[in-house]
Amino acid sequence: MKIRIGIAGYGNIGRGVEKAVAAAPDMETAAVFTRRDPGTLGIADGTVPVFDLSYAEKMADDIDVLILCGGSATDLVSQGPRFAALFNIVDSFDTHAKIPEYLAAVEAAAKNTTAIISTGWDPGLFSIMRVLSGAVLPDGGGYTFWGRGLSQGHSDAVRRIEGVKNGVQYTIPIEGALEAVRRGEKPELTARQKHLRDCFVVAEEGADKTVIEEKIKSMPHYFADYDTTVTFITEAELKENHSKMPHGGVVLHSGVTGLNEHVMEFSLKLESNPEFTGSVMTAYARAAYRMAGEGNYGAKTVFDIPISYLAELDRQTLIREML
Amino acid sequence: MKIRIGIAGYGNIGRGVEKAVAAAPDMETAAVFTRRDPGTLGIADGTVPVFDLSYAEKMADDIDVLILCGGSATDLVSQGPRFAALFNIVDSFDTHAKIPEYLAAVEAAAKNTTAIISTGWDPGLFSIMRVLSGAVLPDGGGYTFWGRGLSQGHSDAVRRIEGVKNGVQYTIPIEGALEAVRRGEKPELTARQKHLRDCFVVAEEGADKTVIEEKIKSMPHYFADYDTTVTFITEAELKENHSKMPHGGVVLHSGVTGLNEHVMEFSLKLESNPEFTGSVMTAYARAAYRMAGEGNYGAKTVFDIPISYLAELDRQTLIREML
Repeated sequence: MKIRIGIAGYGNIGRGVEKAVAAAPDMETAAVFTRRDPGTLGIADGTVPVFDLSYAEKMADDIDVLILCGGSATDLVSQGPRFAALFNIVDSFDTHAKIPEYLAAVEAAAKNTTAIISTGWDPGLFSIMRVLSGAVLPDGGGYTFWGRGLSQGHSDAVRRIEGVKNGVQYTIPIEGALEAVRRGEKPELTARQKHLRDCFVVAEEGADKTVIEEKIKSMPHYFADYDTTVTFITEAELKENHSKMPHGGVVLHSGVTGLNEHVMEFSLKLESNPEFTGSVMTAYARAAYRMAGEGNYGAKTVFDIPISYLAELDRQTLIREML
Repeated sequence: MKIRIGIAGYGNIGRGVEKAVAAAPDMETAAVFTRRDPGTLGIADGTVPVFDLSYAEKMADDIDVLILCGGSATDLVSQGPRFAALFNIVDSFDTHAKIPEYLAAVEAAAKNTTAIISTGWDPGLFSIMRVLSGAVLPDGGGYTFWGRGLSQGHSDAVRRIEGVKNGVQYTIPIEGALEAVRRGEKPELTARQKHLRDCFVVAEEGADKTVIEEKIKSMPHYFADYDTTVTFITEAELKENHSKMPHGGVVLHSGVTGLNEHVMEFSLKLESNPEFTGSVMTAYARAAYRMAGEGNYGAKTVFDIPISYLAELDRQTLIREML
């Protein structure tokens, strides 16, 4: 009997979850839920039924874990509490400042279900590494660098500028800063000293590129505090060279014990950010299923879950082969 | 009220635990237990009482967690079950083939205590990374490399050879193999293709260095399957350049989702292997204390422990600041 996964939202992450479930021998995709016309989705596995999202509650008995693949800002704030009332859920809620409030709302709903929020790689695996390294080396300092990778939020900000037809933004960690942390120097780093922002922009015909470049570079929060480069390219070049969604990053922690220095480093190099995110969510779906089976209900984060709950292998095999 | 730690065994790891406890604001070393003459230990903090190990059981009410700092082969096999009957314990049992048997013996004893076995960094943190990466990217391959670092077991093997007065052995990962894994090639690697062994040897006066070198290089299990270098040095050089105990390593996992390749990497660079090991054990002592407080008794491994249990910070703070 496989774990029956429901996928709520069939964008990039939903498709990533579908691939991850297909790769997991102990899981199957039981249904996909969407707000679009179910007939137009182009589901990878044609045998998987597709329903309108409003129909999800009627399927509660057919789904073991519902993986919420919508965005934090518009979808999850309402979907998390709504679906946690009936389903075990996993999501990738990543609006950092609102996590405590969101957790409380999901907790209130998850009376008889297990809801694991804010999974993925950051928040998610990177959060685990930050806590782990801080706990082991409290006399130290931790750093998170992102990239090289495509940032969805910054790309959106570029595309909203007047005269921009299309564009993408890459976040790039500054190698010298990484090296200083690896040497155990514990540098104080400003935003500008940690990351570069590299934009590739397709301008509308007749738009003033000097004005566009200036508007990007001076945009508060997004670009003004960084060294930003802007390169104008054609739509064809954008499609050819910038249609993938790579990402990754590094959690670095250096600390001392007595006179000795230690460096802990966790890095990810991802060719597809949404597919990897979907893979992490799928592993946490397994954990949600098991915790619910033990009656361990309520809203959880990655900090609350033993690592063994993510693995398909049983405890004895894990101990024998992986410990 | 601080968590009262007992340290059983005051070798390199015991001293590392003592430093880690001193760096933890929520813990204190309540006692050190030793088989040596308690007066000769030279405890870093002179206010900590030192007792003969045979006296430990009488202190059961004064110790919240007893950290076992002895060796796997001779000490822990008996100490683990013996002390788990009365104390919450943490150890670094690392005789891999015997872990299931040892776990069962400790489990039988830990009826009203929490016993976390085989902590440290390998087994320990590296084990967590192997399970985590395998769970997230099941369609992939994982690799563990050790070093550059001083291997205690291999150094002992060198020192047992006739004509050897003193010596150390460094395990060194082969950079080309690491790079192949990082490129996602999933190579099949023999022992020889993964690590080099680099020995620095002080010969007894009049000993035949050619014979010593040949004996080292042909030693089954330890050296015969590796490319090994042997350098003869003086006792003074050994003391000057080889008296530290650095170690570290890398857990690398590459895997695919659909057409996309991902690489997960966790690395440690440690100036003092025993001090870092002691720091990890101390973080798990906090977890043992909390689990015992919840009545979650029995023998546990690092796979069974939520990451939040290792941290001094409370759940709300972890979620707000680290998620």
